[in-house]
Amino acid sequence: MKRVFVTGGSGFVGRACLSELTARGFEIHATTRGAPLNSARTQWHQVDLGKPADIGSLLLRVQPTHLLHLAWCAKPGSFWTSPENLDWLDRSIGLFQAFSQCGGKRIVATGSCAEYDWSTGVCHEVTTPCRPSTLYGRAKLAAAAYLEAMNGHGLSTGWARLFFLYGPGASEQRMPGVVISALNRDEPANCSDGTQRRDFLHIEDAGRAIVSLLDSDLAGPTNVCSGQATQILDLATQTAELIGKRDLLRIGAVPSAASEPPLIVGDNSRLRDELGWIARYSLSQGLRHTIAAWRNQTVAKCA
Amino acid sequence: MKRVFVTGGSGFVGRACLSELTARGFEIHATTRGAPLNSARTQWHQVDLGKPADIGSLLLRVQPTHLLHLAWCAKPGSFWTSPENLDWLDRSIGLFQAFSQCGGKRIVATGSCAEYDWSTGVCHEVTTPCRPSTLYGRAKLAAAAYLEAMNGHGLSTGWARLFFLYGPGASEQRMPGVVISALNRDEPANCSDGTQRRDFLHIEDAGRAIVSLLDSDLAGPTNVCSGQATQILDLATQTAELIGKRDLLRIGAVPSAASEPPLIVGDNSRLRDELGWIARYSLSQGLRHTIAAWRNQTVAKCA
Repeated sequence: MKRVFVTGGSGFVGRACLSELTARGFEIHATTRGAPLNSARTQWHQVDLGKPADIGSLLLRVQPTHLLHLAWCAKPGSFWTSPENLDWLDRSIGLFQAFSQCGGKRIVATGSCAEYDWSTGVCHEVTTPCRPSTLYGRAKLAAAAYLEAMNGHGLSTGWARLFFLYGPGASEQRMPGVVISALNRDEPANCSDGTQRRDFLHIEDAGRAIVSLLDSDLAGPTNVCSGQATQILDLATQTAELIGKRDLLRIGAVPSAASEPPLIVGDNSRLRDELGWIARYSLSQGLRHTIAAWRNQTVAKCA
Repeated sequence: MKRVFVTGGSGFVGRACLSELTARGFEIHATTRGAPLNSARTQWHQVDLGKPADIGSLLLRVQPTHLLHLAWCAKPGSFWTSPENLDWLDRSIGLFQAFSQCGGKRIVATGSCAEYDWSTGVCHEVTTPCRPSTLYGRAKLAAAAYLEAMNGHGLSTGWARLFFLYGPGASEQRMPGVVISALNRDEPANCSDGTQRRDFLHIEDAGRAIVSLLDSDLAGPTNVCSGQATQILDLATQTAELIGKRDLLRIGAVPSAASEPPLIVGDNSRLRDELGWIARYSLSQGLRHTIAAWRNQTVAKCA
């Protein structure tokens, strides 16, 4: 019997994990601050993760074998530097401790490529030094290090380092959502010159990777990424062409941020070799899927 | 007014820091579980660091501007794998939080070269990945990461990564104490073949480095090391020759541990360039000083 306690289950990453958890036969308990999602296979608990006593008694009642901790502050833009990151670090540590004290066996939580030293370009779990340049990255790295120290003595812990996830339900303020949403409104999509390269992964492939990590004993950090570097310019162009509105794309209309590193791509050999994971979506398949879902969503909203 | 709260002040590293803190004009408050040291310039507090409420009220009373956190489990041999490391991690985090809540401004705590990936040989704060192979190293790394996340918003934090410290008062179970103590008893000193190279630093040089870091705003990890790699064999031979009992040294009498990495040496350019630190002891000077102090200690014990 595998019973998982999921935090942040109603978020972008959480939703992708829930379907995979169901597929793998987990009994699912998920927390949410707002209204529960419509998901028959999930038992929702409305609880504030900032209240350790509430979490403690809930965990005692649920007695989960697995913990999938996804919740964190994620407001686009401000999350990089928000002091809330330290609150989430403390909450995460408290949650790990409470879960362990209730006899839980396996924890996976999500970190970020922002933990790595971005000057190296290609990020590998073992050989790339961690040197976060943001408070977000530092707080995630501290949670990762805490979790790694807990590994052993009947508890196994893993850490999923997420790269640039996209797909249905992603923020309109991120790529490629920013292009899709503008073009769907027949408005110009203003982009920087987009020469920087990033590692994009479809959210469903990410969800399968995270749940596969949870359902294993793999310890320490595992990159969740495609292993492919794509120029932002290429991503924007492909997206606009698939929508059929290439003329509305304004490359170079906004200045590039001075601090943008030229290359951030992950090595995903650990994910592939240790967990047997393979991506189901190529970038162009993933973009088609995302654009179609966005259109249906918009149609649904308008209907 | 600089008022420092020192944990582990009566230990090997603590004693070396106290004299340097005095020299730099700190008002010193130090914790000890046992009897206070005879040190006129230090106010000793007998307190159990495992009792957060006691620590909290003590910090509120003392109102320190600086925290120098040295206490940790250190029993030779067992400390590498002891579950106590996780208790010390939690205590450390609680202490950092309590100090910050009392309005403290600067924290320095001590880590270890055991945080690095030892397969790299030369350890540099920025370019060497951290990949501890022991629970001790993982718990120290987690404390370091937590402290680094706290840096900012009126609090500055630094982390001293200690390498192989030796000198008067060091454990007889470590080099060169193991050789000195055996030869002082006219007994053979049994050593492995000693081909591995390590970075040895005299405890007084380490104390000056740690306090210099505390008295600065330098954030993140700083190696506290000599930057010189010395073969264990050389160290043992030099020590035996200085004592005049080379014939009692039995090189190769015990097997080398299979897991001993061939080289662990630190890059100390951050310590030298950012803090203006220079070592006062060469290895041979340091060994002479240590042997003399050990002799006086033995004489004092016998008197």
